[in-house]
Amino acid sequence: MSKKPLILVTNDDGITAPGIRALIEAMKTLGDVVVVAPDSPQSGMGHAITVNSTLHLDRVTIDQGDQPEYSCSGTPADCVKLAVREIMDRQPDICVSGINHGANSSINVIYSGTMSAALEAGIEGIPAIGFSLCNYNYNANFDAAKHYAKQIVAKALAEGIPKDVVLNVNFPDVPQKDIKGIRICRQAKANWIEEFDKRQTPHGKDYYWLTGTFVNQDNGQDTDEWALENNYISIVPVQFDLTAHHSIQTLNSWDFND
Amino acid sequence: MSKKPLILVTNDDGITAPGIRALIEAMKTLGDVVVVAPDSPQSGMGHAITVNSTLHLDRVTIDQGDQPEYSCSGTPADCVKLAVREIMDRQPDICVSGINHGANSSINVIYSGTMSAALEAGIEGIPAIGFSLCNYNYNANFDAAKHYAKQIVAKALAEGIPKDVVLNVNFPDVPQKDIKGIRICRQAKANWIEEFDKRQTPHGKDYYWLTGTFVNQDNGQDTDEWALENNYISIVPVQFDLTAHHSIQTLNSWDFND
Repeated sequence: MSKKPLILVTNDDGITAPGIRALIEAMKTLGDVVVVAPDSPQSGMGHAITVNSTLHLDRVTIDQGDQPEYSCSGTPADCVKLAVREIMDRQPDICVSGINHGANSSINVIYSGTMSAALEAGIEGIPAIGFSLCNYNYNANFDAAKHYAKQIVAKALAEGIPKDVVLNVNFPDVPQKDIKGIRICRQAKANWIEEFDKRQTPHGKDYYWLTGTFVNQDNGQDTDEWALENNYISIVPVQFDLTAHHSIQTLNSWDFND
Repeated sequence: MSKKPLILVTNDDGITAPGIRALIEAMKTLGDVVVVAPDSPQSGMGHAITVNSTLHLDRVTIDQGDQPEYSCSGTPADCVKLAVREIMDRQPDICVSGINHGANSSINVIYSGTMSAALEAGIEGIPAIGFSLCNYNYNANFDAAKHYAKQIVAKALAEGIPKDVVLNVNFPDVPQKDIKGIRICRQAKANWIEEFDKRQTPHGKDYYWLTGTFVNQDNGQDTDEWALENNYISIVPVQFDLTAHHSIQTLNSWDFND
C-alpha cells in the first residue's frame, strides 16, 4: 500500500505571505500537507530559537483546503521544532520552507530564517529544502517558482537528499519561459558592505537603520550567484557541520606552550 | 614602530555579563580594546540581524578603564557591523566574542549568538574567535577561561587565523589546574531532542516553553564534545561557506527532465 508523502511547510515571511501560499498549493499536488509558520515576518532572524519566552500556536484557516495550518509566535526554527514534537503524528517525509520573498543565495544563507527552518529539519534528520525567489516584493510572481519547486521536491522525494545535507534553492526573477534550467552550485563568496543610515529621534538622540550593498567577490561559474544571473535556478547543498576540516592541520601546528 | 593590536570585544549575554567583563580584562593586557555589546541578553538569537527596526548605541561605563564601551540595542551580529562601520577608526586586528555563559560546542554553534558575532567579523575579513564556558551560571568562575583566552588570542595574533575561518573555543568547567591542554577538534555530531513544556494561561489557552535534552551521537575522540568531557579546551575551526561540496556530484546525477 503506497502512502502519500507527509510534507511540512513553513517559512519566515509569515503564514499569510503569498510565497508560502504558492508553496502550499504546489505541495498539495504531491502529498499530505501540514503548515506551521510564523504569525509575523521573521526576516533576518538567522537560526534564532525562543528560549526565554513562551511560544503560542493557533490553528488557523487562511485558504480553503484540507491541510491543517498553525500560526506560531516563534521563529522559523521554533515552528519546525513544534511541528515535529507537538503537532505531527509522525516524522514528515520532507520539510519545505519558503518560498521566500527575496534571495537567500551566497552568504545570505547565514542570515536566512527560511534556511534556518530547513536546517533545523535537517538536524532532526528530516529531508529539507529552502526555496527563495529573487524578488522582495509582496506581489512578486511565484508561478515559475511554484512549478519548479514541485519538480524539485518530487525529485528529492524520489531520490533522497544526501544525509546531513539540506538544499538551498533560489529562483531567478524571470518568467518561466526564460528559465534555462537547474544548476547544482556552490555558495558564492560574497558579503555585504553595510551602510548605516544614521538619523536623529525627535528628541535629538542618534539611531541607525541597517542598509547595505551586496558584493559578489566570486568569479566562478559554478556558484549560485552566477547561475541566478544567467537565469538558472540554483541548488546549493548546505551542511550544518561547520567544521573547516581543511584548517585543522594548520591549527595543530600552533604550539600553546610557548 | 610597533602598534598595539586593536581588539573588538562583544558577546551575546549582554554588556554587563561577568563573562564579557572577564574577556575585556584579559584583552586589555594584549592591546587596545573597544567594546560593543548588546544591552540585554540575546541567547539563542542565532545569526539574527536587525533589518526591520532601528538600532540604538549608547556610550557606557561599566568597569573602570580606558576602553570605550558601547551598549547596543541590536543582536551580536549587529554589534559587529556597527562597531566596524560607525565606531572604530580602523578595522580591528581581531574580534573576540564571549565569554559565553554556557557551551557552544557541537551543533550549538548554529544557535549561538556568541559565534554569530565571531562569524560576522569573519565574513568581514576580521580574524575572530568566540569563547564559551561550559557553565550557564551567572556566577561561574571565569579564571581559567580568562587565562587561556589570553593565550589563544595572543597565539592567533602572532600566527594569523586561516582565511575564511573563525575559531569556536569552549572551556570545560573545571579549575585551571585540572585543564589538560588545548585540542583542535571537529564539531561533534549531536542534536537536541526537544521537549515542549505545555502549559495553560490563566485564561485556559495553551502555550509552550522550549526545553530539551542534548544528545551526542558521535563516538569520535577528535570532537569538541570528547575534548570537553576529558577536561581539554576545544578549538573548532568554523567556516561560513556552508556548501556541502562532497554532495555536489551526487546531486548532479539528478535528472530534472524526467
